[in-house]
Amino acid sequence: MNAYSCKNAAELEELYAAELQHFESCKAQGLQLNMARGKPAKLQLDMVSDILTVLQNGDDCIVDGLDSRNYGELAGLPCCRKYWADVLGCKPEQIFVGGAASLNMMFDVISRAYTHGLLHSVRPWCREEKIKFLCPSPGYDRHFSISEFFGAELIAIPMLADGPDMDMVEQLVKDPQVKGIWCVPKYSNPTGIIFSDEVCRRFANLKPAAPDFIIMWDNAYCLHEFEGEYVPFPDILSLCEEAGNPDMVFEFASTSKITFAGGGVSVMAASIGNIGYFTGVFGVQMISYDKVNQLRHVRYLKDKAHTIEIMKRHASVMAPKFALVADTLEREIDPLGFAQWKRPKGGYFISLNTMPGTAKRALALCKEAGVTMTTAGATYPYGIDPNDSNIRIAPSLPPLEELEKAMEVFCTCLKLAALEKLLHK
Amino acid sequence: MNAYSCKNAAELEELYAAELQHFESCKAQGLQLNMARGKPAKLQLDMVSDILTVLQNGDDCIVDGLDSRNYGELAGLPCCRKYWADVLGCKPEQIFVGGAASLNMMFDVISRAYTHGLLHSVRPWCREEKIKFLCPSPGYDRHFSISEFFGAELIAIPMLADGPDMDMVEQLVKDPQVKGIWCVPKYSNPTGIIFSDEVCRRFANLKPAAPDFIIMWDNAYCLHEFEGEYVPFPDILSLCEEAGNPDMVFEFASTSKITFAGGGVSVMAASIGNIGYFTGVFGVQMISYDKVNQLRHVRYLKDKAHTIEIMKRHASVMAPKFALVADTLEREIDPLGFAQWKRPKGGYFISLNTMPGTAKRALALCKEAGVTMTTAGATYPYGIDPNDSNIRIAPSLPPLEELEKAMEVFCTCLKLAALEKLLHK
Repeated sequence: MNAYSCKNAAELEELYAAELQHFESCKAQGLQLNMARGKPAKLQLDMVSDILTVLQNGDDCIVDGLDSRNYGELAGLPCCRKYWADVLGCKPEQIFVGGAASLNMMFDVISRAYTHGLLHSVRPWCREEKIKFLCPSPGYDRHFSISEFFGAELIAIPMLADGPDMDMVEQLVKDPQVKGIWCVPKYSNPTGIIFSDEVCRRFANLKPAAPDFIIMWDNAYCLHEFEGEYVPFPDILSLCEEAGNPDMVFEFASTSKITFAGGGVSVMAASIGNIGYFTGVFGVQMISYDKVNQLRHVRYLKDKAHTIEIMKRHASVMAPKFALVADTLEREIDPLGFAQWKRPKGGYFISLNTMPGTAKRALALCKEAGVTMTTAGATYPYGIDPNDSNIRIAPSLPPLEELEKAMEVFCTCLKLAALEKLLHK
Repeated sequence: MNAYSCKNAAELEELYAAELQHFESCKAQGLQLNMARGKPAKLQLDMVSDILTVLQNGDDCIVDGLDSRNYGELAGLPCCRKYWADVLGCKPEQIFVGGAASLNMMFDVISRAYTHGLLHSVRPWCREEKIKFLCPSPGYDRHFSISEFFGAELIAIPMLADGPDMDMVEQLVKDPQVKGIWCVPKYSNPTGIIFSDEVCRRFANLKPAAPDFIIMWDNAYCLHEFEGEYVPFPDILSLCEEAGNPDMVFEFASTSKITFAGGGVSVMAASIGNIGYFTGVFGVQMISYDKVNQLRHVRYLKDKAHTIEIMKRHASVMAPKFALVADTLEREIDPLGFAQWKRPKGGYFISLNTMPGTAKRALALCKEAGVTMTTAGATYPYGIDPNDSNIRIAPSLPPLEELEKAMEVFCTCLKLAALEKLLHK
């Protein structure tokens, strides 16, 4: 129920005039605030900067008889493969450790599918007449961009409370042109939901027509609770194996939001068959990834249990910011009823659906008042939200006092855009 | 003149018996020696391990107002772009700093040409009926593998004393299917030669039929003298620009043999147009490369002059090894006259041409005696040396005493294989 809808035009005009005045006063402050990207705050980075000095000299760089400073071990240092297997709940031999960016590993998988095909491809995707990719939406724009870059038609799948609409997914994978689906299964970007066990099980049991259909399982927020204790999550590799689909899934993760953003260690987890195939393929492009940084991370993060302890430091910075956003939305927006959102317990985002047809306008107003947000529509395939309603809020970067100001501006802009719409301005 | 050719069969049999006895005694020692890859020695890595601690805390990670620990600056930290421009003699805006591996950047350029085309492509290379790549040989096997991986026909170009046979190159680029050429212009892998100014000039002035022909200029050993002072080398970007071919060249380098092998910082240098194009393209696969490691390197290496000083440490380890190899070959092989080689002053390799038809056999014997060498033929397209003659010696990794033993075995195997051939064994 939309509180504005009970008002008559004169009342709405009055509300509009008040919001506009507030907007103008915000604008006059010449703000420069940013809630656009999931970047950790300086305070978080400072909290983990001890990692810089865990390797002090040459001797520290030797592990299991291997010198991390020299070429070799394409799939990663054994101790780092073991670390990631511990974190993701799979086996070390299912782990391929990469460079600083998991996005680059995802790109490389799709790029190789396009140029050479995957383990079960009949032909490389570039030789297919047409390929399609399923994009649970709202989702992560950089995922969608990779598929689009390689010419796939993007198909939006609605996100429900416990994951993507699996009825629709199960139906669509019967089309042999459908080659894959993007997922952020835990604290999904941007909705913050966790896929239910039932959704994970249905993923593992998909029966796609394409023999080389792949689930791109971006477990970016696998340890990223900011409220409450660590939430266990099923190992998708085992589920797929049990379902007779061992090669259908590629899981990804990184330490970009554990240690340094863009300066961490990424990982791909997959079946032994896929790891073997990609070790061959990566062997053409690489001698070996940065093992010094791999070892630095293993020494610092130690294991899953210790990493969860480190994540509590991040939580201490993140939780008050998410609480501030949630409290502000509850106070300013919920009573008006024209927008919906959920309070997440982990991840980096809050997803808000405002009055249809007003998201772009609201963010244009934000920009005018000096608050940068993720572009409206970015969470949908081709950057087009059919309802012009979804907005991704990324509260991690600004300090609390800036965030408070940014949220004030944001709520005003949401209201202004909604009132403009109702008043046909 | 081959000294063996003056001997009669009985004399050759006598020499063979002596070498065989020596070989068997070497074999009995159960050696495990490696001259296969251009890996730095532990001593070299120890000499530069101070780089581990140049960044001590969070404040050290801030530079020019940028936090290297967070996302951003896809083309690299400005100070790192400036560093590489200094080293390569080009402009900072012509620099794109990558991850730990320059090979991966080369791969990405060819991969992108294949999937999407380059700045002046009529169509992506995967839509061309056929593509060809010129491979100056002996050359670097990993270069050739990248072209082969993307379906190019590889054409061997003879290496002369001052670079590839440019008459042949100028002729072949008239074929519009010829899309590029691989080069290691300074201390070429494996011949150790330096391209002459005239060869560089002729490269820059090529008039290829393909509008998207590219020179892959892998300046891997740009500062890698181990004997004598730093040898200045022309900036290929300026030469190409002056010749009206600004977008025809991509230059690559890395710190893999300056700091840590596979744990350094790589770079691509190209025209402003190409950097713009690839910044867009890399933007799909990456948020940003590891800027902490970029900053660590800038703080440690400082500038070109200081890096040249650091390279003198490496030279102090490398020079005695190359001298040992050269002295051994001069003593053991030169008098027999069946093999030719040149004494390099920089780089990581010595290239030797032994009696045609005996390289594979010689290296099989080496393996039998516990000495691993780069596979025979690896320096030619498809791994096939038409003369079965070229051998790449990589003396950097083993300590001097091991190298001495390895060279003893190697020379014995060269002689044995030659004698077997002459005696039709």
